[in-house]
Amino acid sequence: MRHNLIRDMAEDDTGEPTLSRREFLGSGSQAAAFTLLGTQTTSLPSSQPPEDRIGVAVVGLGNFARYVLPRLRGARRVRVAALVSGTPDTARRLAAGHGVPENRIYTYESFDRLAEARDVHAVYIALPVGLHAEYALRALRLGKHVLTEKTMAASVEQGRAMVAAARSAGRVLMVAYRARFDTYNQAAMRMARQRELGEVVAITAHKGFALGNAVGQRGWRTQRSLAGGGSLVDIGIYSVQAARYLAGEDPVEVTAISRSTTGDPRFREVEEDIAWSLRFPGGALASCSASWRYALQNRYRVACTEGWLELEPATSNGNLRLRVGRGNRGDVIEERMLPQVDQIPLMFDHFAECVREGKAPLTPGEEGLRDLEVIAAIYEAAASGRTVRLAGG
Amino acid sequence: MRHNLIRDMAEDDTGEPTLSRREFLGSGSQAAAFTLLGTQTTSLPSSQPPEDRIGVAVVGLGNFARYVLPRLRGARRVRVAALVSGTPDTARRLAAGHGVPENRIYTYESFDRLAEARDVHAVYIALPVGLHAEYALRALRLGKHVLTEKTMAASVEQGRAMVAAARSAGRVLMVAYRARFDTYNQAAMRMARQRELGEVVAITAHKGFALGNAVGQRGWRTQRSLAGGGSLVDIGIYSVQAARYLAGEDPVEVTAISRSTTGDPRFREVEEDIAWSLRFPGGALASCSASWRYALQNRYRVACTEGWLELEPATSNGNLRLRVGRGNRGDVIEERMLPQVDQIPLMFDHFAECVREGKAPLTPGEEGLRDLEVIAAIYEAAASGRTVRLAGG
Repeated sequence: MRHNLIRDMAEDDTGEPTLSRREFLGSGSQAAAFTLLGTQTTSLPSSQPPEDRIGVAVVGLGNFARYVLPRLRGARRVRVAALVSGTPDTARRLAAGHGVPENRIYTYESFDRLAEARDVHAVYIALPVGLHAEYALRALRLGKHVLTEKTMAASVEQGRAMVAAARSAGRVLMVAYRARFDTYNQAAMRMARQRELGEVVAITAHKGFALGNAVGQRGWRTQRSLAGGGSLVDIGIYSVQAARYLAGEDPVEVTAISRSTTGDPRFREVEEDIAWSLRFPGGALASCSASWRYALQNRYRVACTEGWLELEPATSNGNLRLRVGRGNRGDVIEERMLPQVDQIPLMFDHFAECVREGKAPLTPGEEGLRDLEVIAAIYEAAASGRTVRLAGG
Repeated sequence: MRHNLIRDMAEDDTGEPTLSRREFLGSGSQAAAFTLLGTQTTSLPSSQPPEDRIGVAVVGLGNFARYVLPRLRGARRVRVAALVSGTPDTARRLAAGHGVPENRIYTYESFDRLAEARDVHAVYIALPVGLHAEYALRALRLGKHVLTEKTMAASVEQGRAMVAAARSAGRVLMVAYRARFDTYNQAAMRMARQRELGEVVAITAHKGFALGNAVGQRGWRTQRSLAGGGSLVDIGIYSVQAARYLAGEDPVEVTAISRSTTGDPRFREVEEDIAWSLRFPGGALASCSASWRYALQNRYRVACTEGWLELEPATSNGNLRLRVGRGNRGDVIEERMLPQVDQIPLMFDHFAECVREGKAPLTPGEEGLRDLEVIAAIYEAAASGRTVRLAGG
């Protein structure tokens, strides 16, 4: 077990805030924006020897991929076997740093030549959300397994196509919900689902950060086709996921209100802030928000009939805090200290295990698809001004 | 300045949880359910001599009135001049304890004889919500000023009638929003409105407690005509108020979802749990919930563009905590220690000042009426499944 102390990073999930799409597929001038702090990723004895590891091609070398790459040194069952990028300089530099041979560097044009790379068993897609489906489908056609960043796709239709393609190809499709591999989130989920504090009554989940002027008007995050939505898809996905894994079921009703700063050209296609509520069939109500405007928020609380639990930060990679309030007053508060883990290698190792042993992933494509359905319902509720009903779990 | 440490009480606002209406107007068997802890309410030098104080008749001697009465010893400008109750034994006992002469004990039938009591300038109404309007109107007809407990009334129509009657009678009508007289809430309001942490982006406010089996099927809280609603009116009123005073304006859009435990006869007329969202014209979104099912929750947070502030407990009478997170990360967290005050005497003294000097109260009937309009919109949104638009501030 690694006990890492990893500084909370708002940006760890937000990719390259200063890159427009052209830049994203182009210059790569924003390299190495992340600093790695105190991460100990030495391999443990049970690591697979390199030749037995699952070879992964990292598709897209934006900020988020560059955050992930060094962390994969801590993985025991995967190795970085190839890089796919539109920026040759960045690719060459990262390849050298991560032991990837030059002949395993691909562009988006030469992507299909991965078919011939027998040591590349899978792809990890760290592209803008709106490109996930295209590259997942291409990878599946090549016989590769797919781990795709969240949010899984830009629409329910894209998500459905991905799930269907993975099924017919007989390949693993997993969504990179790293928080599901975290000790704190797993503890919270277990406490909520096993009713350690009684029935779950209310879930509140809020995540967001101040975008400031980091994302210009032409950044991919504010183009609906590339981003799939605004702050909800970018950062609210954590709260959509958390509400579902804490409730342990799917919501049946959704309301929502969204807003954007009037006249800001960045928010012509996507929302800046959004608040939504979910009703779960077991009786829990969730109140959530996502924002690109407020200073960092990253928290959730589960209010139960006999107490409450709260994570803040809730879904950063490390540095998490868990507080539990007990009793009818909820005022006997304890803090629970758990091992802080680096979620990234744990997630990749689980993916490798699924690929190697034919296991179903903890966070399969179907799980990502359910989140897409909830997201679509939230947008429909916000746009129509009506409560949207979902089929539920 | 008093520095009291008053234990947070879920019940401090919930009146007599075990009394049905019959009992409320009847036996009074639930006397003295509250224990007063460590309250120092010695008068300060600037107190008015008794004959110069505003004489107040306390109308209704349920648990909440019995919580308030001893605290009025700390007030400098009011004195308890009369009691109105349906339970003569309770009235006599409390009269003896608070220096009220026997000829200043009234029943609901003899209420109008207060007209002749020239030393009774005002009434404080601590009856079930659905009776506030009736007794406010009766008191105003007698020429008395009125301080009524929150929620102000059981409907917008009742609230409007109260405001109109006070205006035409030329008497003060004030709603007992004690949190507005609290140091912590005033600090939070000031910080939010003066943009100490930047623009207000998102407000979250949650209050509720586990009703358990304390309120039977016939308790007035679960009868719509007496209660005006369920957990929203009972306890959610704090969050409706807080969202408005923190945003510093009135909401223009409302969504809501409510639920009750299926088959529980207590929730035939009123909701058990409710979650609602508000959009404010200045750009803030509020996410709130109220519940009679979860263990004590009493908190709000204001997420701003440059930081956040949080009160937890937020609106108890004393024992409050204020945390402030600064910077774009919001992770430089400080706790602000302010004097803990007993809000009750401060509120009554303000009321007395308004009566004496003809000042407009900080929390006039119009303020209570705006909350009633928001509450009505929340119920309409929950019932219709539609976003409800309000005229706004």
